[in-house]
Amino acid sequence: MNLSKNSLKAIDNIFNPASIAIVGASENPASFGYQFMKYVIDYGYRGKIYPVSPKAKQIMGHKSYADLLGIPGNVDYVICCIKASLVINLLYQCAQKNVKGVHLLTGRLSETGNIESKKLEKDIANIAKEFGIHLIGPNCVGIYNPKVGIGFNHDLPKESGSVGAIVQSGGVGGELVRYAGIRGIRFSKAVSYGNAADLNESDFLEYFFYDDNTKLIVLYIEGVRDGPRFVRTLDRVTKKKPVLVLKGGKGEVGLRAVASHTASMAGRADIWETLCRQVNTVNASGISELIDLMVTFDFLHPFAGKKVGVIGGGGGKSILAADQCEAAGLKVIPMPDYTKSFIKSKDEALAGWMDNPVDFSILSGPNITSRDLLNTMATDPDFDLLIANLTEDNPYGEKLWTEWIKNETKEYLNIASKKLKPLAVVIGNPEIGFQEHKHWRWKTMSEQRTILTDAKIPVFNSADRAASSLVKMTTYYKKLIKN
Amino acid sequence: MNLSKNSLKAIDNIFNPASIAIVGASENPASFGYQFMKYVIDYGYRGKIYPVSPKAKQIMGHKSYADLLGIPGNVDYVICCIKASLVINLLYQCAQKNVKGVHLLTGRLSETGNIESKKLEKDIANIAKEFGIHLIGPNCVGIYNPKVGIGFNHDLPKESGSVGAIVQSGGVGGELVRYAGIRGIRFSKAVSYGNAADLNESDFLEYFFYDDNTKLIVLYIEGVRDGPRFVRTLDRVTKKKPVLVLKGGKGEVGLRAVASHTASMAGRADIWETLCRQVNTVNASGISELIDLMVTFDFLHPFAGKKVGVIGGGGGKSILAADQCEAAGLKVIPMPDYTKSFIKSKDEALAGWMDNPVDFSILSGPNITSRDLLNTMATDPDFDLLIANLTEDNPYGEKLWTEWIKNETKEYLNIASKKLKPLAVVIGNPEIGFQEHKHWRWKTMSEQRTILTDAKIPVFNSADRAASSLVKMTTYYKKLIKN
Repeated sequence: MNLSKNSLKAIDNIFNPASIAIVGASENPASFGYQFMKYVIDYGYRGKIYPVSPKAKQIMGHKSYADLLGIPGNVDYVICCIKASLVINLLYQCAQKNVKGVHLLTGRLSETGNIESKKLEKDIANIAKEFGIHLIGPNCVGIYNPKVGIGFNHDLPKESGSVGAIVQSGGVGGELVRYAGIRGIRFSKAVSYGNAADLNESDFLEYFFYDDNTKLIVLYIEGVRDGPRFVRTLDRVTKKKPVLVLKGGKGEVGLRAVASHTASMAGRADIWETLCRQVNTVNASGISELIDLMVTFDFLHPFAGKKVGVIGGGGGKSILAADQCEAAGLKVIPMPDYTKSFIKSKDEALAGWMDNPVDFSILSGPNITSRDLLNTMATDPDFDLLIANLTEDNPYGEKLWTEWIKNETKEYLNIASKKLKPLAVVIGNPEIGFQEHKHWRWKTMSEQRTILTDAKIPVFNSADRAASSLVKMTTYYKKLIKN
Repeated sequence: MNLSKNSLKAIDNIFNPASIAIVGASENPASFGYQFMKYVIDYGYRGKIYPVSPKAKQIMGHKSYADLLGIPGNVDYVICCIKASLVINLLYQCAQKNVKGVHLLTGRLSETGNIESKKLEKDIANIAKEFGIHLIGPNCVGIYNPKVGIGFNHDLPKESGSVGAIVQSGGVGGELVRYAGIRGIRFSKAVSYGNAADLNESDFLEYFFYDDNTKLIVLYIEGVRDGPRFVRTLDRVTKKKPVLVLKGGKGEVGLRAVASHTASMAGRADIWETLCRQVNTVNASGISELIDLMVTFDFLHPFAGKKVGVIGGGGGKSILAADQCEAAGLKVIPMPDYTKSFIKSKDEALAGWMDNPVDFSILSGPNITSRDLLNTMATDPDFDLLIANLTEDNPYGEKLWTEWIKNETKEYLNIASKKLKPLAVVIGNPEIGFQEHKHWRWKTMSEQRTILTDAKIPVFNSADRAASSLVKMTTYYKKLIKN
């Protein structure tokens, strides 16, 4: 690992500043200077907030300063929302104020491909280095630390958790944290680092490696600054904490497009794949899968077996779910003896009929309840894990349908609370339109999703997505044990 | 093709009965006799409704009869919700009343694996044949024909459209029609045919082949009754209308589980794949993909090119979308000359920077608007199609974010209305919980989804799903032209 204790401390200070100056702060809602004022105020930042603006006396209730030098107290961290040509002058002021961390939201630098802009970015980086100032960016949204009350977008969770996110792109950062938040994921910290003129992916990986509040690391990366260091760092980090990776800019697109986004070299797709095989990262193909993996790794205890019991839903639904489990690499074994004997003891006729996957619609009848069956499967030593479909395909109208769904959720909570086996629940997620937002069916399904998520039971929108993430988890832990 | 004109007419009568007897009708909401009364009443069936029940005088406002023979008028169609042991007696009554079509909801027959039940099902089929009665089922939910007002589940669209659905499983049938309905799909008719003791997949394929109201056919199938006929039929049908297929019970699961669901032989996965290669079906891996394909084939005019322009979203979002397009088999070409010259004429600096995929966040500035750019790309002869990401990753708060999103939707409507190129729009679909149902962000996104869907623009929840369906459409039409 490369970073000195001082550098690690400096990064930690950036994530936990006691005071922040927002240079280019504004009350114009179309400006970034406005957004970043909101991002500290709305998330309840408890340190000092210093807006810096040439004209304003006050911005959003905070006394404003014409320049950094006019600020009376210490400034720990500067968020720079002014245009590129003004950055170097700002860095001189930062040096005078002994600022150690600067986030450059400022873009239109090397990502434009323009020679002068590239040179300017290099000059900025060199001057910052000379002054001992660490830079995040340029061309990024900086940090999100709910614990101290700093956001980098609207509508993100205000509570903190144990996932650390390193996200090169600001837009992806906001979307990732927001969408993952809805799935029940909470973050220790997140950082969007853009063009990485100074601090880069490997620096943040090291930081999260040592950060006790971070148990799981996610990485969205377009281009790597220093390949060998990145591989070394990943190799070390993945032995201690799982690292979930989404690569932006693969193949032809990557060779062309990431340069104009974060001024990165994406590298050829085959080089990236070789790299991934060398280290035990868990790789996602898109944001949705990345979040599926976050939920899987964050909510479930490590496990490595693949023999799955598929429960819930009617015949077609359970068969399709079983197909998808099989296609993803899980083993949908025939109903094992322990559960089979139990069914036989309750209902002889059902024993020759009911198998794995379990068609819930044939359970109806007084002899055997879903609770009994679920408990039995959860204690059956031949199953490594269970995937449950919420039986939303039951044929009833509002009242009975809702009762069924709610009872089923309770049963899943019940077996999950016993912690006998990893359990994932599948709840459909149709692309609802405006009318459906008010409909009892979709509201009830969303409610069950919330209840299960609050209990840290991973909820997926289809069985194939559940199965695929669960298989990737077993692969990670198997490799981890081998090494 | 196998069916006689008489048989086709008989199936058409089943879909369009002038009177229906619901045998086993009930006011107990937990019974199927209740559900099927609701399924005709709620969908506004305009023919005669005759509940049949041993005791009731009246059910849901309709005079009830102790048996079929007591009904004064003609009975075109019988929905049978009574237990298996009573079915043969009912068939004798049907013969006396000259009923030509019977839907057997009744289950617990051959799917139980029980020898006596299998024999009973065979007897039922033989007797029906002898009487010239066509059966749907047993063990299925029968027909959905919004035009005449017959449903087979709750909350399905009441308007009819041009998609015909053949769905072996009742649960899958309900879910498919409901979820597809939300995506803007409307059906000519749908049928769930369960154990297929009489009418089977090939019969319904033939029926939809001739049905002028059906332009697109979807098929969920667990097991085929007559393989050679099925292949012959599919081969003929797919030359006239696209057939989208979802197979339930592949691999190991199929060999075991579909017998206990619809008493079918799933067949080995490799046999199924060989079959699919022989005919030009479009195959889906799950219900979600099946619906994606329905939206693609139903909303878009046939096309076969793969050169895609990717627009909308910030840098990371557009790069990830382009990656997924590439992975799915589309060609994300560099920005072609026509569009490049246009950009250059408006903003020299941007011309060296802006490429395909288009990062919408760098468009801001007075020189070039998204409308101009979209219009140019839509008329650029080098693009075969466009995929647009709604720029939900824009960094603003409620007011500006909403304005942006709504304006963008208008731009997409504008270029789609000119019908210059196939256009698909991607709008994220997070797994929202109870709280998010009320949130402005998700309500606004759902609203845009509704607006675009109403204009018959296919909306997908991710770029990879859009790309995958679009590629499958090009493959179908390419094969069609070759043959």
